[in-house]
Amino acid sequence: MPFSEFSDQQQIIDYVTQHIDYFTDDSTLQVTELSDGNLNYVYRISDAGGNSLILKQTPPYIRVIGDGWPLTQDRARIEYNSLKRTAERCPQRVPKMYHYDAEHCVILMQDIGDHDNLRELMIQRVRLPDLAAQLADYLAVTKFYGSGMGLASGEHKQLVRESQNPDLCQIHEEVFFLDPFCDHERNDVNPALRDEAEAFWQNNDLKREVAILKRRYMSDTEALLHGDLHTGSVFANQNSCKVIDMEFAFCGPAGFDTGVLLANFLLNYCGQNNLPGDADERAGYQDWLLTTISELWQRFSQRFSNLMQQHCVDPSLSDAGYQQWYLQQLWQDTLGYAGVEISRRTVGIAHVADIASIESETARADSERLALKIAESLILRRSEIQSPAQLADTVRQLNS
Amino acid sequence: MPFSEFSDQQQIIDYVTQHIDYFTDDSTLQVTELSDGNLNYVYRISDAGGNSLILKQTPPYIRVIGDGWPLTQDRARIEYNSLKRTAERCPQRVPKMYHYDAEHCVILMQDIGDHDNLRELMIQRVRLPDLAAQLADYLAVTKFYGSGMGLASGEHKQLVRESQNPDLCQIHEEVFFLDPFCDHERNDVNPALRDEAEAFWQNNDLKREVAILKRRYMSDTEALLHGDLHTGSVFANQNSCKVIDMEFAFCGPAGFDTGVLLANFLLNYCGQNNLPGDADERAGYQDWLLTTISELWQRFSQRFSNLMQQHCVDPSLSDAGYQQWYLQQLWQDTLGYAGVEISRRTVGIAHVADIASIESETARADSERLALKIAESLILRRSEIQSPAQLADTVRQLNS
Repeated sequence: MPFSEFSDQQQIIDYVTQHIDYFTDDSTLQVTELSDGNLNYVYRISDAGGNSLILKQTPPYIRVIGDGWPLTQDRARIEYNSLKRTAERCPQRVPKMYHYDAEHCVILMQDIGDHDNLRELMIQRVRLPDLAAQLADYLAVTKFYGSGMGLASGEHKQLVRESQNPDLCQIHEEVFFLDPFCDHERNDVNPALRDEAEAFWQNNDLKREVAILKRRYMSDTEALLHGDLHTGSVFANQNSCKVIDMEFAFCGPAGFDTGVLLANFLLNYCGQNNLPGDADERAGYQDWLLTTISELWQRFSQRFSNLMQQHCVDPSLSDAGYQQWYLQQLWQDTLGYAGVEISRRTVGIAHVADIASIESETARADSERLALKIAESLILRRSEIQSPAQLADTVRQLNS
Repeated sequence: MPFSEFSDQQQIIDYVTQHIDYFTDDSTLQVTELSDGNLNYVYRISDAGGNSLILKQTPPYIRVIGDGWPLTQDRARIEYNSLKRTAERCPQRVPKMYHYDAEHCVILMQDIGDHDNLRELMIQRVRLPDLAAQLADYLAVTKFYGSGMGLASGEHKQLVRESQNPDLCQIHEEVFFLDPFCDHERNDVNPALRDEAEAFWQNNDLKREVAILKRRYMSDTEALLHGDLHTGSVFANQNSCKVIDMEFAFCGPAGFDTGVLLANFLLNYCGQNNLPGDADERAGYQDWLLTTISELWQRFSQRFSNLMQQHCVDPSLSDAGYQQWYLQQLWQDTLGYAGVEISRRTVGIAHVADIASIESETARADSERLALKIAESLILRRSEIQSPAQLADTVRQLNS
C-alpha cells in the first residue's frame, strides 16, 4: 500500500489518541517536529501538563532527500525488533516503546527529552561519570545475548534471518568500506586536507586490511548489532543514557558496534584540538575521553567474560582459553572498525559535528589530519595495540 | 501433511511414470533399493533397454533409525536448491535433475551407476588422474559464486536466508565440534585407542582452537557449502566425477568443504598403513594421495585467484593484497576443518571404512593413532603449515 505521510499536526494528534491511551487531556495536545536524523520523521506530542511522547515515522525514502532516493520501509520493522530485544535485556538503555504499527511504519515511544545528544555533550566537553559503565553493560549484554553464545544455535539462526537488513547494510558496505579508501565522487574532502587524502587513497596495505574487515562485516553474523552506534545515536545526562536509532541493526561482527562507538570518542578527541575554548580544558577533556574508553573496555570485557563463563548455551564456547582469544580478537576488531568509522567521517560523505563545526578550513584540516593518522594506525596496527593503555599511548603520540 | 512412504515397488514405478516422461517402455521397469547413506531412501528404476534413473526420497526421520529420530524434511529443499545452483555453474559435477516434488520430498535424477563411490575406489587404491582438476574446479567455482565475491551483496544475503539449515547444522555442530573433543557418550572409540583418546580429550589448546573453528562454522556465512563433502559424497571413474548428497548445504566458511574433502584423503592415507595388500603398492598410493592434495590445492587456488581478479562484484574485494591474504587464510581454515573432520571420524560417532574396515583392533588403532596425530597437528599448527608441500612433510614425518 502507498505510504501515507501525516499531512498536518491534527492528523498526528488523531493518530496518537486513536492508538494509545497515554494522555489524560487530549484537548491541549501540541506537536513539534524534531526530525534531525537524515532518514525519518520524528515528532514530539505533548500536553499542557508536561506529559509527552515521541512519534517516529519511516517514509519509503530518505527524508532529507525525498522520494528521489527510495529506501526500504522494512527499516521500521528492523528498528522495532531491535528496540524490543534490547528492552528485554537492557530496559534502562532504550526508550520505552508504547506502540508499533507495521502498516504505517510508526513507532510511539518514550520522550527522552531529559537527555541530550551525546555528540553535543562531548562537543561542549561535558563529563559523564557513569557513561562508560552504562554503555559497557549495554554492549556486553546485547552482543552476548544476540550471539550463538547466549542463544541456542537454532534461535541465533532465526535471529540472523529476521534481522537481515540488506538495503541498509549495502549503504554501509559502500560508505564505510569503499568510498573513504578511494577518490570516490560521493566523498566530501576538505580542500586543505586534499594532499593527505590522496596519500591515504594510495595506501595498498590499508586497502587490504579494509577488505579483510569488510569481508567480516558482510558475512560474519555473530551478534545482533545496533549497526550505527555513533555518539549521535546515544542520548545521555548525568544519571542515565539511552540508545536510539536502530534501523541499521543486523547480525554482524560484534566489534563493529564497539568500534564505531570508540571511533566517535576519538573523533571528538581530534576535534578538541581546534574547537573553541580554553586549551587546558580541552586537553583535560581529551584525557577524560581516553580514560573513558579504557574504563568502557575494562568493564565491557569483564562483563562479557562473566557472561561467557556463566551463560554460554554451547559448552564448547565456554572454554577459558577460547574466551581469552575471543576478547583479544574482539578488541582487534574494535580497533579495526573504529579506524574505518574515523576514515569515513573524515574523508567520506558523512562528517561529524565534533570536527565539521570547526569553522576555519585550516584548523579543521589539522583535526582531520590527526583523525586520518589515528584511523590508519588503528586499521594497520590493530594486532599490535593490545590494550586501551597502548591505544591511549598511540593516540597521544600521534597528537604530539 | 503426513509423510507417505512408498509401500511397494509398483507405487514407485507409478510415481515415476506419472511424473516424468523418461522411459520409452514402461512395461519392463524394475526397482532396486540402493539406500546406503544414513538419512534417505534411494531407489534405481531401470528398464530392459539399459535406461535408468534414481529416485531419492527424504523421510521426516533418519532412515537407518526410523521415526524415533525425527529430522526435518526441509533437507530435501536444501538439497534440491544446492543441486540446482551447482548445476548452473558446474553441470558436469552433479547428476542431472529430472524432477523435484516439494510435497512428497522426492528428487528424480540421473543414474550415475557408471561412477563408483570415491571412498571405495580409494580403499581399492584406484588412481584417478583427473580427480584433482575436477574437484578443484568444482570447489573454486561453487565457493566463489556462492559468496559475496561472486554475488551482489543483496543476492548473497538472500542465498544465506534460503540456505539456512539449522537442524542439520546443529547435528554437525555437535558431532564435528563437541563430541570428538570430550568423553561424550555418543563417541565410538576403539578400545585399543582408549589411552590416546583420553589424552586427546585433555588437550586444552585443542579445545580452544576447535572453539575458534566452531565459532566460524556457526556464524560466518561467506559461501554456499556442500556441507558434508567427504569421499562418500563423491562418485568417480577414470573420466568423470560427480558430487551428491547435498542435504547438509548452508552458507558457511569456504574452508569447511575443502577441509572435509582433504581430511578424507588423509584418512585413507592413515588406513593404507594397515589395509590389506602389498606394502609398496600401499606406500605408493599414499604418495599419490599427497600429490593429489597438492595438485588439488594448486589448481583450486589458481582458479579462485582468477575468479577474484576477474569477477569480483565488489571492487574492494578484488585488491591483490587481499586476495593473497584470503587464500592463505582459506588454506589455514582448510587445515583446521580437516583436523576436525579427521578427529570426528576417529573418536566420534561416525567412522570411515578406510580405517573401520581394518579387521584387527590393534592394526586399526595403529591407523587411528596416526589419524589423531595428524588431526592435532592440523588444528594446532594450521598457521605454520603454509603449503601442501609442508603438509606432505608433516604427514610423512608423523608417519615415520
